[in-house]
Amino acid sequence: MPRYALTLEYDGAPFVGWQRQANGLSVQQVLEEAAAALNNGEPAVTTAAGRTDAGVHAEGQVADIEIAADLAPERVREALNFRTRPHPISVLRATRAAEGWSARFSCIGRGYRYRILNRRPRPALDAGRVWHVPQRLDAGAMHEAAQMLLGKHDFSAYRAASCQAKDALRTLDRLDVSRFGEEIEIRAEARSFLHHQVRNMVGTLAQVGLGKRPVSWPRSVLDGRDRTRAGQTAPAEGLTFLFARYDPAPDWV
Amino acid sequence: MPRYALTLEYDGAPFVGWQRQANGLSVQQVLEEAAAALNNGEPAVTTAAGRTDAGVHAEGQVADIEIAADLAPERVREALNFRTRPHPISVLRATRAAEGWSARFSCIGRGYRYRILNRRPRPALDAGRVWHVPQRLDAGAMHEAAQMLLGKHDFSAYRAASCQAKDALRTLDRLDVSRFGEEIEIRAEARSFLHHQVRNMVGTLAQVGLGKRPVSWPRSVLDGRDRTRAGQTAPAEGLTFLFARYDPAPDWV
Repeated sequence: MPRYALTLEYDGAPFVGWQRQANGLSVQQVLEEAAAALNNGEPAVTTAAGRTDAGVHAEGQVADIEIAADLAPERVREALNFRTRPHPISVLRATRAAEGWSARFSCIGRGYRYRILNRRPRPALDAGRVWHVPQRLDAGAMHEAAQMLLGKHDFSAYRAASCQAKDALRTLDRLDVSRFGEEIEIRAEARSFLHHQVRNMVGTLAQVGLGKRPVSWPRSVLDGRDRTRAGQTAPAEGLTFLFARYDPAPDWV
Repeated sequence: MPRYALTLEYDGAPFVGWQRQANGLSVQQVLEEAAAALNNGEPAVTTAAGRTDAGVHAEGQVADIEIAADLAPERVREALNFRTRPHPISVLRATRAAEGWSARFSCIGRGYRYRILNRRPRPALDAGRVWHVPQRLDAGAMHEAAQMLLGKHDFSAYRAASCQAKDALRTLDRLDVSRFGEEIEIRAEARSFLHHQVRNMVGTLAQVGLGKRPVSWPRSVLDGRDRTRAGQTAPAEGLTFLFARYDPAPDWV
């Protein structure tokens, strides 16, 4: 059967996350059911580069999907965008997937952005898109602390209790903290992340930003490998899956 | 009674607009009722620099409000932000208003931003915040056409049928059209605007962007002073009230 690669944008708010679950609507379910029209009426099977949690957004999620219809990728994109309405999911790009290519297993790099609104008044326009931290955060101190987490480490201290990965060894390639006016943006890149890793790192860095912990603390939490020592898991709504990298890059339409 | 100036951010989607109306909830009503706690239990009276329509957002609306309580401006801001919950309205700044100062009548400059998402796939994350135009727009041609509208003119061709202004003479100081990737942003500045003026100008410029009308057309529509000749009124959801200017500027806290 023809397989396609898709780049997806979605608002995570109304979903239980990427993955199908019994307790609510997932992005995967909406997409698979929308694809039924192109798959002899049967829901199609999809896999994604990032299994985003409930409330986590995506600007560049990548998924593979196998459907019976042999169509130009533009047609697949248009049909899915028509049939996923009115859900806040949009197929930005599509292409035919190469033999053996997997959105998840062929992915060699993943990028996330985390947004903190750092001002006293609560968000109105960005409600549901940012973590609102009213106390002043020192972004420079957070960035300094973040640099000590780069490289290949056992990230057990930053994984969720529910994380199903076999081991916690990951290589963190980028963890930049920047202030833009009253907003703080954190960019994280790695080949792969553990469950809740980005949100746990952000919650831990925030303790440094608030001046409650020294710049060296997030690294000492890492070295302790004890997940009960880290800061809070930062809220899902501030997190966006930005991109998935492949080599070669898919030939997007 | 003490009067205060407020800078407001709001998401226009759930409101019938700034102004109180019998048929639904307005930003003004939410604010006036939230202020009752600071006004002996009576709704306070507010006026705004821009009477935004239903669905139009604000990042820097300015309002004045008269309340019985004599408080530090920070306290007014905090109390209103507490009491306007859970509506998507946030008081960003507050200050005591000078004698005779009016958010509306003292305002000497207003700025709006209009966002167009110019790509084939529909918006997911920016749904409700942009006008989605799937056909390619030539932003350069739109900008060129926009420059011919600058200056002091009778803008009858671009006012709403319902516009209540006594005359249509307005001075347009800025109308810039810029492309940022798949987004087109229009910035409009004037001392004041007629009802629907920005949205009618955007809808008319879009006809030029689509190549359906020549660059000279928006100016010839202006000169004709006939509002039935202009393009469609661009949707409210792409419009945001950005700022109101005063001289002297309020001493914001």
